[in-house]
Amino acid sequence: MGAERGLDRGWDEGHRGLDVALVGATGAVGRELLGLLVDAGHPRGRIACHARRRQSLELGDRGRFEVLPADAIGRADLAFLCTPSEVSLALAPLLAERGARVVDLSSAHRTRPEIPLVVPEINGDRLDGDPRIVANPNCTTAIAALPLAALDRAARLLEAIVASYQAASGAGLAGLNALAGETRAAAGLRSAPPEASPFPATLALNVIPAVADVDGEGWSGEERKIEHELKKILGRADLVVESTTVRVPVERCHSVAVHARFARAISPAEAREVLARAPGIALTDDPHGPRPRECAGTDPVHVGRVRAGARGAGSLCFFAVGDQLRKGAALNAFQVAARLPARR
Amino acid sequence: MGAERGLDRGWDEGHRGLDVALVGATGAVGRELLGLLVDAGHPRGRIACHARRRQSLELGDRGRFEVLPADAIGRADLAFLCTPSEVSLALAPLLAERGARVVDLSSAHRTRPEIPLVVPEINGDRLDGDPRIVANPNCTTAIAALPLAALDRAARLLEAIVASYQAASGAGLAGLNALAGETRAAAGLRSAPPEASPFPATLALNVIPAVADVDGEGWSGEERKIEHELKKILGRADLVVESTTVRVPVERCHSVAVHARFARAISPAEAREVLARAPGIALTDDPHGPRPRECAGTDPVHVGRVRAGARGAGSLCFFAVGDQLRKGAALNAFQVAARLPARR
Repeated sequence: MGAERGLDRGWDEGHRGLDVALVGATGAVGRELLGLLVDAGHPRGRIACHARRRQSLELGDRGRFEVLPADAIGRADLAFLCTPSEVSLALAPLLAERGARVVDLSSAHRTRPEIPLVVPEINGDRLDGDPRIVANPNCTTAIAALPLAALDRAARLLEAIVASYQAASGAGLAGLNALAGETRAAAGLRSAPPEASPFPATLALNVIPAVADVDGEGWSGEERKIEHELKKILGRADLVVESTTVRVPVERCHSVAVHARFARAISPAEAREVLARAPGIALTDDPHGPRPRECAGTDPVHVGRVRAGARGAGSLCFFAVGDQLRKGAALNAFQVAARLPARR
Repeated sequence: MGAERGLDRGWDEGHRGLDVALVGATGAVGRELLGLLVDAGHPRGRIACHARRRQSLELGDRGRFEVLPADAIGRADLAFLCTPSEVSLALAPLLAERGARVVDLSSAHRTRPEIPLVVPEINGDRLDGDPRIVANPNCTTAIAALPLAALDRAARLLEAIVASYQAASGAGLAGLNALAGETRAAAGLRSAPPEASPFPATLALNVIPAVADVDGEGWSGEERKIEHELKKILGRADLVVESTTVRVPVERCHSVAVHARFARAISPAEAREVLARAPGIALTDDPHGPRPRECAGTDPVHVGRVRAGARGAGSLCFFAVGDQLRKGAALNAFQVAARLPARR
């Protein structure tokens, strides 16, 4: 990731003067956010890391950080909550009351109509009113939303059918550790005991065809989020969204196969032009890409396999891949914060 | 697989009197077919194994088989061709002329209108005319077709959108060996040199979003096959089929996420009833199933996650898993042969 340091992600002198609280700093997303802050030149003395208990955090060649318990959070100008929903629900209003702008990466505030749910390239204008609490979207949603929003602006999206190929990192460090342990076991190595897994079945050499719990109507929590959040981010309550969410043995990039339908005809050539111009998207010509292993650790949502569908001139299919820990989580939250006013 | 020996797959005394030629016996599908024949009690002396060159074939506790070169094929009553398309194209008419009934597992004859393309549970009646050459379908198509055909009979299928999660075995033993070698490398073992891979990229800890070559319109060979073959097997030229075919790091079961639309309303409860009654299908209640790792080595197509879609009362979604080497290839071919007359 060293080659990407110094990338302009919109973090300016004003933002570097803010006192930042990073809550849930020791998880997979928290560590990624801490890396983004350090790489953006944020002064280490202005970053307060918090987690459930006091510890220290080693972040590769970026050095060691002291982590204080969550109940020791002091005054902050900006707070990132990489915390479970129930923690975010309690913490966000408290921190906002104390004067912090809060970016919540959990699902706690996403469905509340008065709280903006933001992918800056799509609905960054929702930040113009300087909201105190901003919700960061679900990882799969953020990755699917970027190309869909660009195409929606061009040809008005009617219907999005999404099948996902979701990485282990979506279940945090526990997910990554479980996959690594199971992969060693699949290779015939059984030196270490198998890691406790957050998944309902072995993920190595397998796919698990529902992410999160499944409700009484047969839809998974992840599929409900994708439907609700796509509608909210695109500002299109009338959108038809169907998805199947599937966990696959991949480390940190989520992929989506999208079969879309638009109000007007849109050719693959026009769609590629639209996508090539859209911020945050990298278009690939690889007939067998984009692929999650090769996209890991990169910022953009990678899009390929753009082709005409079989459901009339308005139907279009594509495949998109984004780093679940970057655009799917930490990077999007960082971009949200970068667009908020750099005021105390 | 021992527990499954003696399963009634329709192979009777008449069939056990046939001289069977198994061409391409040493590949992943050929070995599976040989196992099915032996397990069905077919006399070893009436099975002639052929491959490119003379060798011997070890089939676990089923023993060792002599393999003769393909140009030494003698008279056969029944021939299974587990061969590349160009070989099948040359061999099938020759063997048929010599009096054999031919089941071709390659794609060579699938698109020819005069040659039946058969999944016995769906269009087994196409075998009533005692055709000399029968085409066995593409693996992903066979697995998707079984539940779709049952639901089509109940509510008339209009549209099938399919995203696949395809196993390494679809590329034969070379695919399985490549995945095994890459999995060892991913686990940190580099004792053996990496296997030559039939895949365009590393498959371990990755997904590859196109199976087979991609044509000028952006569709992969596998996606074209699914569209054409589903229409032919279901006898429904008007069907709308869109698919995205993706290779995943799984050993031998293919999975499909299906988003379908029917001419009339069909509830998930009715769909489950229809599927429960359909031959060759095993319905699961596991909210996170069926899964390929757990379905490996079994005969049926496993179906789960049946739920109402968001595109009106006729829309329905489900997830299906089938062993690529069984129902996706060898088992279906075996079932075709079992329904052909047991005459010389």
